[in-house]
Amino acid sequence: MGARGRMGATVVEAVRSAPDMTVALTVDAGDDLGSITPDNTDVAVEFTVPSASLRNVLTLVRSGVSVVVGTTGWTDEGFAAVRDAVDSASRAGQSVVIAPNYALSAVLMERFARQAARYFESVEVIEMHHPDKVDAPSGTALHTARVVAKAREDAGLGAMPDATTGDETSRGQVVDGVHVHAIRLRGLNAHEEVLLGNPGEQLVLRADSFDRSSFMPGVLMAVRSAASGTRPGLTVGLEPLMD
Amino acid sequence: MGARGRMGATVVEAVRSAPDMTVALTVDAGDDLGSITPDNTDVAVEFTVPSASLRNVLTLVRSGVSVVVGTTGWTDEGFAAVRDAVDSASRAGQSVVIAPNYALSAVLMERFARQAARYFESVEVIEMHHPDKVDAPSGTALHTARVVAKAREDAGLGAMPDATTGDETSRGQVVDGVHVHAIRLRGLNAHEEVLLGNPGEQLVLRADSFDRSSFMPGVLMAVRSAASGTRPGLTVGLEPLMD
Amino acid sequence: MGARGRMGATVVEAVRSAPDMTVALTVDAGDDLGSITPDNTDVAVEFTVPSASLRNVLTLVRSGVSVVVGTTGWTDEGFAAVRDAVDSASRAGQSVVIAPNYALSAVLMERFARQAARYFESVEVIEMHHPDKVDAPSGTALHTARVVAKAREDAGLGAMPDATTGDETSRGQVVDGVHVHAIRLRGLNAHEEVLLGNPGEQLVLRADSFDRSSFMPGVLMAVRSAASGTRPGLTVGLEPLMD
Amino acid sequence: MGARGRMGATVVEAVRSAPDMTVALTVDAGDDLGSITPDNTDVAVEFTVPSASLRNVLTLVRSGVSVVVGTTGWTDEGFAAVRDAVDSASRAGQSVVIAPNYALSAVLMERFARQAARYFESVEVIEMHHPDKVDAPSGTALHTARVVAKAREDAGLGAMPDATTGDETSRGQVVDGVHVHAIRLRGLNAHEEVLLGNPGEQLVLRADSFDRSSFMPGVLMAVRSAASGTRPGLTVGLEPLMD
Repeated sequence: MGARGRMGATVVEAVRSAPDMTVALTVDAGDDLGSITPDNTDVAVEFTVPSASLRNVLTLVRSGVSVVVGTTGWTDEGFAAVRDAVDSASRAGQSVVIAPNYALSAVLMERFARQAARYFESVEVIEMHHPDKVDAPSGTALHTARVVAKAREDAGLGAMPDATTGDETSRGQVVDGVHVHAIRLRGLNAHEEVLLGNPGEQLVLRADSFDRSSFMPGVLMAVRSAASGTRPGLTVGLEPLMD
Repeated sequence: MGARGRMGATVVEAVRSAPDMTVALTVDAGDDLGSITPDNTDVAVEFTVPSASLRNVLTLVRSGVSVVVGTTGWTDEGFAAVRDAVDSASRAGQSVVIAPNYALSAVLMERFARQAARYFESVEVIEMHHPDKVDAPSGTALHTARVVAKAREDAGLGAMPDATTGDETSRGQVVDGVHVHAIRLRGLNAHEEVLLGNPGEQLVLRADSFDRSSFMPGVLMAVRSAASGTRPGLTVGLEPLMD
Repeated sequence: MGARGRMGATVVEAVRSAPDMTVALTVDAGDDLGSITPDNTDVAVEFTVPSASLRNVLTLVRSGVSVVVGTTGWTDEGFAAVRDAVDSASRAGQSVVIAPNYALSAVLMERFARQAARYFESVEVIEMHHPDKVDAPSGTALHTARVVAKAREDAGLGAMPDATTGDETSRGQVVDGVHVHAIRLRGLNAHEEVLLGNPGEQLVLRADSFDRSSFMPGVLMAVRSAASGTRPGLTVGLEPLMD
Repeated sequence: MGARGRMGATVVEAVRSAPDMTVALTVDAGDDLGSITPDNTDVAVEFTVPSASLRNVLTLVRSGVSVVVGTTGWTDEGFAAVRDAVDSASRAGQSVVIAPNYALSAVLMERFARQAARYFESVEVIEMHHPDKVDAPSGTALHTARVVAKAREDAGLGAMPDATTGDETSRGQVVDGVHVHAIRLRGLNAHEEVLLGNPGEQLVLRADSFDRSSFMPGVLMAVRSAASGTRPGLTVGLEPLMD
């Protein structure tokens, strides 16, 4: 679904190139979702728009098809509705994967930031994007900051050292105690860096997404997981699949 | 032991500054190791020279003291001798930690490189050091390359893509199929970077050790572990303590 | 010329988007170069293949047209032939620009490396490219290394400090005394870094070319220069135009 | 002057190690400046505190000695007073160099940022320091941003592209239209990065000052310039000496 969009077209191409997959159907706005059934489709990939995504996913789940969702803008209510639908689904092993970011580098970077956070006095997050992006900081950077803050709290760490006084505008946005900085630069696509510091040492984690092809390995991994039926129900985020 | 060396002096200072530790004794070449006993010392820290280290550690283990070792140049025979000694040691919970690198950033970077390796088509390792270093590449970079190569092999990945033909001098040293590059630059201390690439994306892991204070959090972590008695026997490397 | 190639098509699009230019003709292999004359064309842009480029450029110069050349693989003999042709050209202000790299970031990086080289004890060059590239190191990195070596020599600097002994495979290719390292990583396009070091400090210059659009600002700058007639004759490289 | 301070002590050591210089006198707070005369001193180096520096420099200039000043906190009035004093000084070729930053990498980075600014759509400045620093952003980063903004204005460039709407806290401090971001991280010393972007390309300029020894090459360069008598009068900043 969304096969004629930029992202959808990239997915279609990626699936075609994968040796273990075939493209069953391509569907876009205006097409009938009823054409997608367990008879012709193991896993549907949904890259549409926030206003259509929930309805699409529920329809597909009820048809007995597993779904991998790349559309963003999901709410807790949306997750709950999908979880209910898929848990009461008729077909065994049916599943839905909804991930805010399919770039493996971004998913791993956040995992590593979470693992490392407790060992360092200081942590800051920097995200860099093209200047046409309307929100700052990015949703991914916000999420990383919250995950890092949680890991520090769980480890009993207090506030980070920071002697700054006076105007703090240049110090960025403080998210649960973690400073987040957003760069906007023509030529960039989507990049995120986590800097962790101790006396005499620094650990830098950086994920670069240069273009939309960066999401394909993650999408294919989710499709394989959904097709295998080994993780029935709703999975939010790609990380649970990476073990 | 080695308290008058540069590294030893830094350790003494770090232990003095730690709220949960005190310096029992400082010992250097020529001093009598017999003065170190379980009565006055919970954990001995050994930063000396390869020619003395094995003998020092065995003496201390037999005296009933736990030891944290920062001296490099250990062989498999050395490890075996220490393992035997500490396994047959009289005092319950006695332990020895021998780590090639006490910088937490370096230890975590290698852990993350190992975890990430299976998800990427390409991986290369770059290490950067001051130009007075005599060996290239660094032992840490060699170890990282081997760990990465092993993780790729375990995941069934084949050779990395590389169309280079002709003179390959600029492509660095190939360690188990992983290219390793060594930079020598005045002003640097010890830095290592692992680059991982997929179509459209890159993950960069970088550890910077700016000076010898960077090893202190790791040394103190090892001392605390050894003092706790919860990991009896020989532990090689800092990573097993980080969980 | 070369308008149906990937690079040529990008140039055609860039010229169309430039407010001060129009596309007169698009020509590709098999088309008649005779159709290009001073009556319909101020500046021809030539992105073809090494085997055709010299002949194309000479034909155009003799027709009275200025040329901007992006095809690589030029030899000193080729440069000399073009220089002779354009110097004896009939039309006033006629010019040819042949540049190995039209990315402004790469051109500026090399300029800065040349300016900075004399002030630092150590300099090394790292280039990073996609793994389908057949040569290593890149022509640009080789050129940068030579330029840096020349600047050091002119300033009376001697060899860089380097205590490495034994196997030096990881130390890269030594070009006029400058170590050059080549990384090949899926996901990357064309990137170059120059590291300069002194006691306690480092200067890093890095140019990233993420895709072929990165060459367009440089191509348009060369077209404007050629159209203006202010730099008659042959210009090799983009840097002379940047002042 | 200020020879017992950390910076002063480092200068004394650097001068001692320089093959073409000798330490004439070391002076600190409480010592008599009258002991410094053209008979025993060619160039005085002044690293004291803002409250004492102007008076020290004026006294020395009137004694007929050239001065290199590393103390920060200078005002336009201070510069004017020193300029008057040295311009009316008795000894031919007498000079004063006052620089806010003696790290060659930082001075060159700002020069390169100024040269490059006109060729790029987007520019942002990131500075990274240890968390004990009280001001943010650093004076050097502020200066770089102003220099970049001026170069863009001189080249007739307008505002940079930036579609951000809503909360812009993460976008840093806007200095003459240039976004400046300040990172505070344990383990770092003083680092500054300028990112410049065009469609498809990025130029990164980065200066790392790892410790106070990074200022010595710049201090010695200023001392040599002052001793040579070739730049009489007041010079503000190190850049005019670097040609």
